[in-house]
Amino acid sequence: MSDKVLDDISHRRYNPLTGNWILVSPHRSKRPWQGQQEAPFRGDLPEYDPKCYLCPGNQRAQGDQNPQYQNTFVFVNDYSAVKETQQDYNPSNSNDNDDLATHLLQAQPVTGRCYVLTFSPKHNLTLADMSPAEILPVIHTWTRIYASHLSLSHPLRSQADHALATIPPNPDGEATPPPQQLRYMQIFENKGAAMGCSNPHPHCQIWTTSILPDEPARELAQLAKYRREHGGKHMLEDYARLEMAKGERVVWQNEGFLVVCPWWATWPFEVLVIAKRHVRGLVELTEEERKQFAEAVGEVARRFDNLFETSFPYSSGIHQAPIDCSEEEAETSWFHMHFYPPLLRSATVRKFLVGYELMAEPQRDITPEQAAERLRKCGGELYRNLLN
Amino acid sequence: MSDKVLDDISHRRYNPLTGNWILVSPHRSKRPWQGQQEAPFRGDLPEYDPKCYLCPGNQRAQGDQNPQYQNTFVFVNDYSAVKETQQDYNPSNSNDNDDLATHLLQAQPVTGRCYVLTFSPKHNLTLADMSPAEILPVIHTWTRIYASHLSLSHPLRSQADHALATIPPNPDGEATPPPQQLRYMQIFENKGAAMGCSNPHPHCQIWTTSILPDEPARELAQLAKYRREHGGKHMLEDYARLEMAKGERVVWQNEGFLVVCPWWATWPFEVLVIAKRHVRGLVELTEEERKQFAEAVGEVARRFDNLFETSFPYSSGIHQAPIDCSEEEAETSWFHMHFYPPLLRSATVRKFLVGYELMAEPQRDITPEQAAERLRKCGGELYRNLLN
Ligand SMILES: O=P(O)(O)O[C@H]1O[C@H](CO)[C@@H](O)[C@H](O)[C@H]1O
Ligand SMILES: O=P(O)(O)O[C@H]1O[C@H](CO)[C@@H](O)[C@H](O)[C@H]1O
Repeated sequence: MSDKVLDDISHRRYNPLTGNWILVSPHRSKRPWQGQQEAPFRGDLPEYDPKCYLCPGNQRAQGDQNPQYQNTFVFVNDYSAVKETQQDYNPSNSNDNDDLATHLLQAQPVTGRCYVLTFSPKHNLTLADMSPAEILPVIHTWTRIYASHLSLSHPLRSQADHALATIPPNPDGEATPPPQQLRYMQIFENKGAAMGCSNPHPHCQIWTTSILPDEPARELAQLAKYRREHGGKHMLEDYARLEMAKGERVVWQNEGFLVVCPWWATWPFEVLVIAKRHVRGLVELTEEERKQFAEAVGEVARRFDNLFETSFPYSSGIHQAPIDCSEEEAETSWFHMHFYPPLLRSATVRKFLVGYELMAEPQRDITPEQAAERLRKCGGELYRNLLN
Repeated sequence: MSDKVLDDISHRRYNPLTGNWILVSPHRSKRPWQGQQEAPFRGDLPEYDPKCYLCPGNQRAQGDQNPQYQNTFVFVNDYSAVKETQQDYNPSNSNDNDDLATHLLQAQPVTGRCYVLTFSPKHNLTLADMSPAEILPVIHTWTRIYASHLSLSHPLRSQADHALATIPPNPDGEATPPPQQLRYMQIFENKGAAMGCSNPHPHCQIWTTSILPDEPARELAQLAKYRREHGGKHMLEDYARLEMAKGERVVWQNEGFLVVCPWWATWPFEVLVIAKRHVRGLVELTEEERKQFAEAVGEVARRFDNLFETSFPYSSGIHQAPIDCSEEEAETSWFHMHFYPPLLRSATVRKFLVGYELMAEPQRDITPEQAAERLRKCGGELYRNLLN
């Protein structure tokens, strides 16, 4: 393959999901590093921490007490970035309605609701430590929350009703949607201090807003453009098929999901989990596929940890159909999950996306093919379980 | 002003320079922080460090020896992200020339040259410690490098020749351009371990590439669109005038430059330095304006340090006309400098742009108006000089 030259030369790659380019400098990984070191992972957390606001039975910042939950537990973030109700803001009523300010000082009010969701009652677990059977309740909770927040006229409404009727509700409480219909739900996890996580107790966040944020909006526009320009075909279906045929960026797969280091990866060991069939949102997964998805998520987390024998930091997030959307937008959506991990060379040396990356263009030091090859070799038992 | 409501409610603001939105949650700064703490600043560096590869007289990684330089010193990065020559890559010659791969696996070769530029022979200084007269040689070096790399047919060629004829060359050596004409020059600084800087010796980098990177390309497109839609007027001229009239986001100004926390700031104390008249590139600054620019840069750096009484980390970068461009592109360009600092609440508590920010949309916790007000109060002597 003549693409082998890309292992040796500087080049940029196009991300068709966002329309952005990434500068790749494969030779640069030889550079010595004298800068900031991440704190090494200390695997000595207790199963229960009386000071953790996420552990069962403990009290939270605003006084609420957590139940003695069994699997997952969801609650409204005590410090939400958006709220359900707030003062009105109508920019056209302000006294800045001259032309200049209208264009240059644009603002929109945003309401919504932010949830925190714990993955397990055990303070010292991560997704990497959990079996697919233990991750399944997390997928169930994600699915029920997504389902219950879909608009009444949503194209996936009947699938949502089916999911709500067949996945048993969480005995420790459920997230009920706010009275006003919201537009978009972002499920994401910040894992590890390096990714701004302030509590090691395994958890993710779910921010639900009255607006469609930039990143999913950009992806939807790019996905729609691809369909228009390729006779209605889906970009991520074509892409998954292409990667399965080539193999060099594939990390792992099962019947329902493909795990690749995408061609356009920005973060050193960035990974994309793609549904193999046209799943538009969580509510379309069958129970079998939910198990396969739990397996895929666990596989990614465990391979990350095995790579540098540490608890690998990352931010991850699910992109799927907005919770309020048109037939067309739902049809354009293709269920996938991003993992953006910062570590580059070891448990303590990360990649910084800073000066050049912020001012000019993201830059990476190893190719996605090299990253995929290393992650392919990291399967099997979690390294921690093999020690002593 | 009815915009005061924006101090209390969640909203998003539009960045007309990039076309992106930012979620603002003013109430969220009350949130307690139990996560990663930045290492506190230790002001005990020596003026000369025998192990620093940037100090005068020392040897660098690949064996070259630095001269006993007096002000600034420039050299080609020993671990450049791009190189002048490399193997050819012609994607159309690859065996992936089927339609799918052509669209989904796009790559372009990138050549260029990366420089490192020290600001001072003294290991323990930063721009905040330097007077405008000491920063002026940095501006001179930036200007000469930019001038010498402009294409022969560049719209600013005669200004470049004038700058090269009137600014004295650096006696410690100059950056001479590579034989092939390059497209774009990004001057940027990563300051502080939190921003991936691996050596505290004051320095910046200058990456010069055969391609126009995404971020300046996006800005140029947005600036051009504004001109088209506003009868040829310049966005940043209109914006600077609007901010000067309003005042609430202005941090500081002199005759030539305005320093504001932009309406659309993403980083907590993000600052934008805007030329007040239509300067398209460094070579158009008069000596008087170069002094004013040195003063503005010093002012920003010192105010940052005074804010939390620490050596404030940031990434900064200059956006101006590409080094090879059309009359139209040059005319569209408007000289400005961004400062992206991560600290949020103290010398050790930063903002993380992670999960939600990467998956959905950047989010900030204080308003740019609140940030500007605090930076306005941080003028005067550098706090370190007032201790003991
Ligand atoms: O060349 P440096 O300063 O060692 O490297 C730093 O800046 C570069 C350009 O922003 C980044 O790509 C690196 O990740 C960062 O560590
Ligand atoms: O709510 P948390 O986990 O404390 O906060 C973390 O995630 C948020 C969403 O990505 C970010 O805005 C914060 O900067 C980060 O520290």
